[in-house]
Amino acid sequence: MATLGVDLGGTNVRAAVVDGKGAVVAEARRAHGGGTPEAVAGVIAEVIREATAKVPLVPVYGVGVGIAAQVNADTGIVEVAPNLGWRDVPFAQVLSDRLGRNVVLLNDLSAAAWGEFRAGAGVGAQELLVVAVGTGVGAAIISGGALFRGAGGVAAELGHVKVVPGGRRCGCGDDGCVEAYAGGVSLKQQLREALEESRGTGLSEFVARSGRSLEGSLLEEAAAAGDPVAQVILQRAGSLLGLAVANQITMLNPERLILGGGTLHHLPSLRRAIITGVRAYATRSSLAHLTIVDAQLGDRSGLVGAALLAA
Amino acid sequence: MATLGVDLGGTNVRAAVVDGKGAVVAEARRAHGGGTPEAVAGVIAEVIREATAKVPLVPVYGVGVGIAAQVNADTGIVEVAPNLGWRDVPFAQVLSDRLGRNVVLLNDLSAAAWGEFRAGAGVGAQELLVVAVGTGVGAAIISGGALFRGAGGVAAELGHVKVVPGGRRCGCGDDGCVEAYAGGVSLKQQLREALEESRGTGLSEFVARSGRSLEGSLLEEAAAAGDPVAQVILQRAGSLLGLAVANQITMLNPERLILGGGTLHHLPSLRRAIITGVRAYATRSSLAHLTIVDAQLGDRSGLVGAALLAA
Repeated sequence: MATLGVDLGGTNVRAAVVDGKGAVVAEARRAHGGGTPEAVAGVIAEVIREATAKVPLVPVYGVGVGIAAQVNADTGIVEVAPNLGWRDVPFAQVLSDRLGRNVVLLNDLSAAAWGEFRAGAGVGAQELLVVAVGTGVGAAIISGGALFRGAGGVAAELGHVKVVPGGRRCGCGDDGCVEAYAGGVSLKQQLREALEESRGTGLSEFVARSGRSLEGSLLEEAAAAGDPVAQVILQRAGSLLGLAVANQITMLNPERLILGGGTLHHLPSLRRAIITGVRAYATRSSLAHLTIVDAQLGDRSGLVGAALLAA
Repeated sequence: MATLGVDLGGTNVRAAVVDGKGAVVAEARRAHGGGTPEAVAGVIAEVIREATAKVPLVPVYGVGVGIAAQVNADTGIVEVAPNLGWRDVPFAQVLSDRLGRNVVLLNDLSAAAWGEFRAGAGVGAQELLVVAVGTGVGAAIISGGALFRGAGGVAAELGHVKVVPGGRRCGCGDDGCVEAYAGGVSLKQQLREALEESRGTGLSEFVARSGRSLEGSLLEEAAAAGDPVAQVILQRAGSLLGLAVANQITMLNPERLILGGGTLHHLPSLRRAIITGVRAYATRSSLAHLTIVDAQLGDRSGLVGAALLAA
């Protein structure tokens, strides 16, 4: 039975027709200009039409939407969507009215974790921790084959676990969050600060020589080339992230830890640091049950997960 | 419907007849000398006879046992019981053979958490984190009204979350566990170390004047009297414990945090530090759903919880 998965990001919306096994059979994408929930719902309706038009003979049953926002999955209300500027929007209802179909709405990270669980690196496991390091640091917990939501649907905010009390200011307004050290946006910011301080380690020359725009991935290359400032930034990010993940392995005792996200892809030393940290700091009893794997579905995990949740 | 709850500690075994609402209607206790699982099962059978003899007209249906050990609740196997010197003992089966009844076996902290959940400070909530600070630091997670066990039944080992990488050696053999700073045994050890170092702050004189044996609770009194060494030990313990608990509130998003255990009872500043830490370091979205309460059942929580789980 095919369903529709929608991935609603800050600037783009994607839709896919996904079969019951999690395979994408048709896909479409376009930019949305933000605006009101009704305007964005209109763009989603167009993208869905475009995707379904590619497979006119496939009947499609449900719609699942993953959104880069804090969502109450029970009520379908978007509590806060920083990129869209929304607050307390009953978006499942808005979109359902527009489409004339039931809509399942959830956080994009939960959708991606569900995709990996049902059709990717998590297949066969029932207790999972999914860690995604992209512009920020996110996680999802799956237990007993279901998403762990907590009392208010805001569980698993790994990026805002505090690792340095009183430390770097995070985008969330708190200080010392793991995301303030190891998220992609923060790594880029730390690189910029290092260049401004220009401690004469040759980092500025390295970046200039690379001819590339300022990105976190330059840290990996500069560190590999021996730059001590880049090495310190990456090592600190890796050890704090590794410790935070290790402590969650101790608390949650999952059988599988899935690592994904663009920042880990571009900064392999950060991925290695998580694995090293988990092995060093999680309890032996929790490690005895654990396998660590890489995410398999790439940037389609959210589309696939949203569709499978709607099935 | 009444059931039997058994609390098997390192030196004592207690049994209680508990009604369906969690009220203790009869109780007995005696010391056990440790030894083989069969020997301990024999003592348990005697204590149960003693407790049930007090209420001969009450029919008793099931037996639940909480044990100070790492237990696989699915198989009824005691994996490691440090105080009893057992390893991989199928104790649910051993005791069931002895009693001629089915036996539910679980970790004592899980039993205590279940007691608070069903008949104490947790009544009415479905998502809970229970933190108990006694000789060690333990926790239990209840989600969707069920104990969260993880893949191997060893979830919620809060005491062995690492808070100071490479820090104080813990009883578990690892370094930097929260229990190595904030557990009752460790606090007493830190007091002893402070006395041995005798930094001339008057702590030795304070302890001598108290006329009491060396206990963690002396730290509270010495700190209140202005002793800087005691203050540093307690503040460090409190801030590390508070941070560790706060991060679990962020990850688990419970609606209720229950605080209990003898060490928190004797060291109110440690209890206050947990609350302060949670309010300072947990995410605002998780705090919006949280109530912090004290455990209500005292040292009967394990008996009551084991009995109610057997019901």
